Amino acid sequence: MKTQVAIIGAGPAGLLLGHLLRAEGIDVVIVERAAPDYVLGRIRAGVLERTTTDLMDRLGLGARMHAEGLPHDGFHLADGERLIRIDIAALTGRKVMVYGQTEVTRDLMDAAPERGLEIIYEAADVALHDVDSDAPYLTYKQDGAVRRIDADFLCGCDGFHGPSRRAMPASVACAYEKVYPFGWLGILADVPPCNHELIYANHERGFALASMRSESRSRYYIQVPLDEKVEEWPDDRLWDELAVRLGPEAAAHITRGPALEKSIAPLRSFVFEPMRHGRLMLAGDSAHIVPPTGAKGLNLAASDVHYLSEALIAHYRRHDRDAVAGYSDKALTRVWKSERFSWQLTKLMHRFPDSDAFDRRMQVADLDYIASSVAAQTTIAENYVGLPL
Amino acid sequence: MKTQVAIIGAGPAGLLLGHLLRAEGIDVVIVERAAPDYVLGRIRAGVLERTTTDLMDRLGLGARMHAEGLPHDGFHLADGERLIRIDIAALTGRKVMVYGQTEVTRDLMDAAPERGLEIIYEAADVALHDVDSDAPYLTYKQDGAVRRIDADFLCGCDGFHGPSRRAMPASVACAYEKVYPFGWLGILADVPPCNHELIYANHERGFALASMRSESRSRYYIQVPLDEKVEEWPDDRLWDELAVRLGPEAAAHITRGPALEKSIAPLRSFVFEPMRHGRLMLAGDSAHIVPPTGAKGLNLAASDVHYLSEALIAHYRRHDRDAVAGYSDKALTRVWKSERFSWQLTKLMHRFPDSDAFDRRMQVADLDYIASSVAAQTTIAENYVGLPL
Repeated sequence: MKTQVAIIGAGPAGLLLGHLLRAEGIDVVIVERAAPDYVLGRIRAGVLERTTTDLMDRLGLGARMHAEGLPHDGFHLADGERLIRIDIAALTGRKVMVYGQTEVTRDLMDAAPERGLEIIYEAADVALHDVDSDAPYLTYKQDGAVRRIDADFLCGCDGFHGPSRRAMPASVACAYEKVYPFGWLGILADVPPCNHELIYANHERGFALASMRSESRSRYYIQVPLDEKVEEWPDDRLWDELAVRLGPEAAAHITRGPALEKSIAPLRSFVFEPMRHGRLMLAGDSAHIVPPTGAKGLNLAASDVHYLSEALIAHYRRHDRDAVAGYSDKALTRVWKSERFSWQLTKLMHRFPDSDAFDRRMQVADLDYIASSVAAQTTIAENYVGLPL
Repeated sequence: MKTQVAIIGAGPAGLLLGHLLRAEGIDVVIVERAAPDYVLGRIRAGVLERTTTDLMDRLGLGARMHAEGLPHDGFHLADGERLIRIDIAALTGRKVMVYGQTEVTRDLMDAAPERGLEIIYEAADVALHDVDSDAPYLTYKQDGAVRRIDADFLCGCDGFHGPSRRAMPASVACAYEKVYPFGWLGILADVPPCNHELIYANHERGFALASMRSESRSRYYIQVPLDEKVEEWPDDRLWDELAVRLGPEAAAHITRGPALEKSIAPLRSFVFEPMRHGRLMLAGDSAHIVPPTGAKGLNLAASDVHYLSEALIAHYRRHDRDAVAGYSDKALTRVWKSERFSWQLTKLMHRFPDSDAFDRRMQVADLDYIASSVAAQTTIAENYVGLPL
């Protein structure tokens, strides 16, 4: 098979990119290791920046998001008994949209057939070849046969564990990584949220987050040691712990319910440079990971896809060869800013096992300062709603 | 001898406090371990917040400061070839005043006799007694005799190494400390500054600061390892190093000259709580130390003195017993905010021996963000000019 752009991975990054290119008449094929139901079953982020919702709107695929999503004007930082509201709408003139990543994926997936976006699911053993050359291609196995797709460009939207980043020659690559000494234990439940806005809490027993996917589906997290087992956390123990860490006011409004999903995820900061080599470009988690504090992961994938689609459209429509060459630098500028914000908010709101009394007082001083300074609140708000493209 | 308020230490904190109390007719005696010339010979900070200049003006002692001091509208953060200007005047409506601590001390010292502010110099072995009781007193040795001063209150303005903090009972005390893994090697020279505003530089060879005391006296610093010896830095080597670290533009304007003073100082963050116990109150370096990045040390001493003088004036003039009791909490709120800012600017601008590639990229990302965000610049500017009292 031959196409213009072959995309590896049918998560939100790959699907968004595919749709944006298709809308310009560019030929695209997406190959995805998993089956559609598996892709839709992955529980991920739920807060969309304007940058991301704008892309959905541009594709004409934002109708359900606007109907079912919850626009949020602010969120809270909690520290013991105190609740600091970050009024993002007043401080930046923008809102964020609470709408699950699963729903974004579903909307993009459902629209694929009518827009001629071909997705090959259950493509095993995807491998990338000759990315340095003018004739790159990928291979995969299906129904016992090895199949091949030749393309002008390969786009790796296949996440942290996918093959695309590994196809970059080691001689050009540079990776930056920070692994945090704790994880997040998350629970998803069909109960109303305890608060109409998100609460990030720095409690002496560790971080907690009250989040949501809709008015009837809640998502909560607590910081746990890296060696914690999910079996040690029956639902009741987790609800009890959330009530303590989120503070009395939020606790009074927690509705408990059985876990639809409960799992522990490690926290990592990771950046791979460059994001392009030859005719291979990376976007989203294949190139970088942020800790989930601040909800930047999906949004950063969306801004990568924005830059990458612009570059490919410039290449095909305006025969601009420099556009693709400039993709990596352009995307990385925003990547590092989001990495910075996610790292800083993670440091501010978690209890680190190796921190001393001075470090802890600096957290308190940071929160005191944020509580008292419009400028400090604005720095948080403008990052939370998404820095300009 | 009997007085109302006995102050230990005739540095800028003790002198400012003494003058503020004398202006309200309160009896004050200051005891100082050193001789006047020694006090004036100490080379320290040189950037005054409005909070500090306001106190000098309130005392009617600001004339020389306004005539000889240099009002600054901004300063620079340098990172390799880039110079980020923080326009403090535009961002906050305030300026800072470059005027050496030595000059502040001189102005306060010179005005002491005419205002009836008694200063006992060369008072050896100062000791504080019965600070828990209603009748505290201090003793010192002079001319071979032990002398005693009874007072209503003892105020410890005697710096990090003085006896006042040690007179606090261990049972009430809590100290927070961070020692940085480097020091500052400073040079003072009678040469024009290389730039009309300060430059804080984060260079791959380490931090450097271009500062000044006047239009003809410069003060420069470089970050050095803690075990560095000043003898290893003849003037020429130091000027060469400054030229490299401050970058080509500043280097082109460096005028070299013989060192009037050259020394290495360690960097420390330190806070002692509480700042009052019984009838003993601490102010300035006796209670807290900030790393010099951001020039908060003297200014923090001045705000302590502001709060402490208000409390004592309320005690004597309005018989308000709660004012003195509330001093520690009031002062500490601002202390922790200044500690936070000094710690953050120190982390941003220095190279830490134990930092990894990710940490370094976060410094770059912080500087990129500051360069691009008015809100981020405002957080720095509002701290630099001094947070509200």
